Amino acid sequence: MLSYWNDYPTIQNKLQIVCSLIEEQLQVRNKEIQDTLIEFANSGGKYLRPAYFFFFTELGEKSKQDQKQLTQVAASIEILHMATLIHDDIIDDSPLRRGNITVQSKYGKDIAVYAGDLLFTQFFDLLTQAMNGSRYLEINAASMKRLLLGELDQMHSRFNKRETIEDYLCSINGKTAELFWLACIQGAHFGKTSEEIESLAGEIGRDIGLAFQIYDDILDYTAEQHILQKPILEDLAQGVYTLPLILANQEHPEIFAPYLAKERSLSLEDAQKVAELVVSYGGVEKAKEFAHKYTKQALQNIAKLPECQAKNGINQLTKQLLQRTF
Amino acid sequence: MLSYWNDYPTIQNKLQIVCSLIEEQLQVRNKEIQDTLIEFANSGGKYLRPAYFFFFTELGEKSKQDQKQLTQVAASIEILHMATLIHDDIIDDSPLRRGNITVQSKYGKDIAVYAGDLLFTQFFDLLTQAMNGSRYLEINAASMKRLLLGELDQMHSRFNKRETIEDYLCSINGKTAELFWLACIQGAHFGKTSEEIESLAGEIGRDIGLAFQIYDDILDYTAEQHILQKPILEDLAQGVYTLPLILANQEHPEIFAPYLAKERSLSLEDAQKVAELVVSYGGVEKAKEFAHKYTKQALQNIAKLPECQAKNGINQLTKQLLQRTF
Repeated sequence: MLSYWNDYPTIQNKLQIVCSLIEEQLQVRNKEIQDTLIEFANSGGKYLRPAYFFFFTELGEKSKQDQKQLTQVAASIEILHMATLIHDDIIDDSPLRRGNITVQSKYGKDIAVYAGDLLFTQFFDLLTQAMNGSRYLEINAASMKRLLLGELDQMHSRFNKRETIEDYLCSINGKTAELFWLACIQGAHFGKTSEEIESLAGEIGRDIGLAFQIYDDILDYTAEQHILQKPILEDLAQGVYTLPLILANQEHPEIFAPYLAKERSLSLEDAQKVAELVVSYGGVEKAKEFAHKYTKQALQNIAKLPECQAKNGINQLTKQLLQRTF
Repeated sequence: MLSYWNDYPTIQNKLQIVCSLIEEQLQVRNKEIQDTLIEFANSGGKYLRPAYFFFFTELGEKSKQDQKQLTQVAASIEILHMATLIHDDIIDDSPLRRGNITVQSKYGKDIAVYAGDLLFTQFFDLLTQAMNGSRYLEINAASMKRLLLGELDQMHSRFNKRETIEDYLCSINGKTAELFWLACIQGAHFGKTSEEIESLAGEIGRDIGLAFQIYDDILDYTAEQHILQKPILEDLAQGVYTLPLILANQEHPEIFAPYLAKERSLSLEDAQKVAELVVSYGGVEKAKEFAHKYTKQALQNIAKLPECQAKNGINQLTKQLLQRTF
């Protein structure tokens, strides 16, 4: 899916090198796991996080940059992302990811557990090569922990009919926004920009991540299955209640209570009905307001970046990503 | 189970501090996972690897040592061990571990996946705090990778009736011996001994780990369930063929073929019969020869260590651990 970057040829080239490094890292003596992971790595991820990383590096001084280090850090971010996806699919029992059968449904949970674990070690391995005493090693460790705690929050609040907006935001802040934060702040840092830009980059990344996840969750309630390439309302049937439902349910709990009470036995028809109710009771519209707020904050902060081609790229990509049509 | 160390009060004190640090590290906002992990941490592990680590630190100069660093490294080793145990139990579908119900059978595979993942991040977190630019950070990353590859080897060779002695040794070298190697070599390194002792410590650890795992595998074929506190022949029913069976099967494949052909449908009676055959065809005796060989090598290398109380402790513990009665 690097064709997504056809309009950004410099970024595309860099992502291609990241791709090759990742494939190299996945060479292990267990052929089954190796093939599984390489297939997964090539299964259509857009490399969005490494892309943001590289955009932010371009704000810095090229002469001071270590290109090998940049490639390693970019690859580490994508590998951490892949690891969490594979383990999430175990938790979610997801049959599909990016329109492909998930590792766990194709090869079983056993392979999926170790495949994810192996990616965690590759993440660690790449970082120790790249960091060389940088304080970002500890920042990565702390970030990985926040990411996992976000996943745990989500798992913990399954079927929680009283989940609040704050619970939801706390969870997606960890499980999604954290990696965007890490990609952007590390791009600025290892790209040798200033401390000011580094901190701004982190904020931009965080807001992009929040908006990105909220839009993703909105899609569950609005998209057709053939567009999304994943089962409609999968989250709902798994007890994962996202922002549109939380907002609609908060104002009209009596409408949703009979459906939510069914928990795992919710039928596809029920789920469809819940989706319609979420839309008709304004859950989607209200959730969009949240997404707009974070998008706007991100764009305002992007505007504060120094004028250059990379800034335009970041601005364009963010609009492309977050100003989706529904 | 720190009572195991009653005869080694100095080590016991240090392990107690490691215990507290681990418990501190397990404080997370997800109460369910926190309780699960704390319960698991207190469920009877002997802290064997941190103990070896501390024994080897005692060969060094105390005035040069950073006690906080030593505690962190020791805790990181145990945490990595715990993480792999939890994920192994998912793969093995084990109902029991150390006589307690496993995390996965008590709380489900979902919690077990994330509980293990969280421990990996805590491992990473502790190391980044402790290492401060030490080359051992990279050594830990590489070691963690070899450990996982050992696990993968074992999973990959399930139900492989042609598994060789070399396959088996390669797998246990990763999945078990690696962590003993890491514990001993890091004890010598961070305890500020010499390079010579460091290298010797690594070899000693490796041999102890190999012998330890072989004895553990022998126990499957000889122990009563109530002694081992885990289901007899669990490995066998899961297609994990260990050294005693490999050795007996190598010489009398015709005897074992009809049983092994049953794979997952092997009954408890079949498994009992296989165990009897492994014993009567000399598999256990031959496996003991391997274990003796590694034990002997370890003891010979321990003899080369400089005379001191720690050396006596290492010697005594190793004999206690590896000269089991059957």
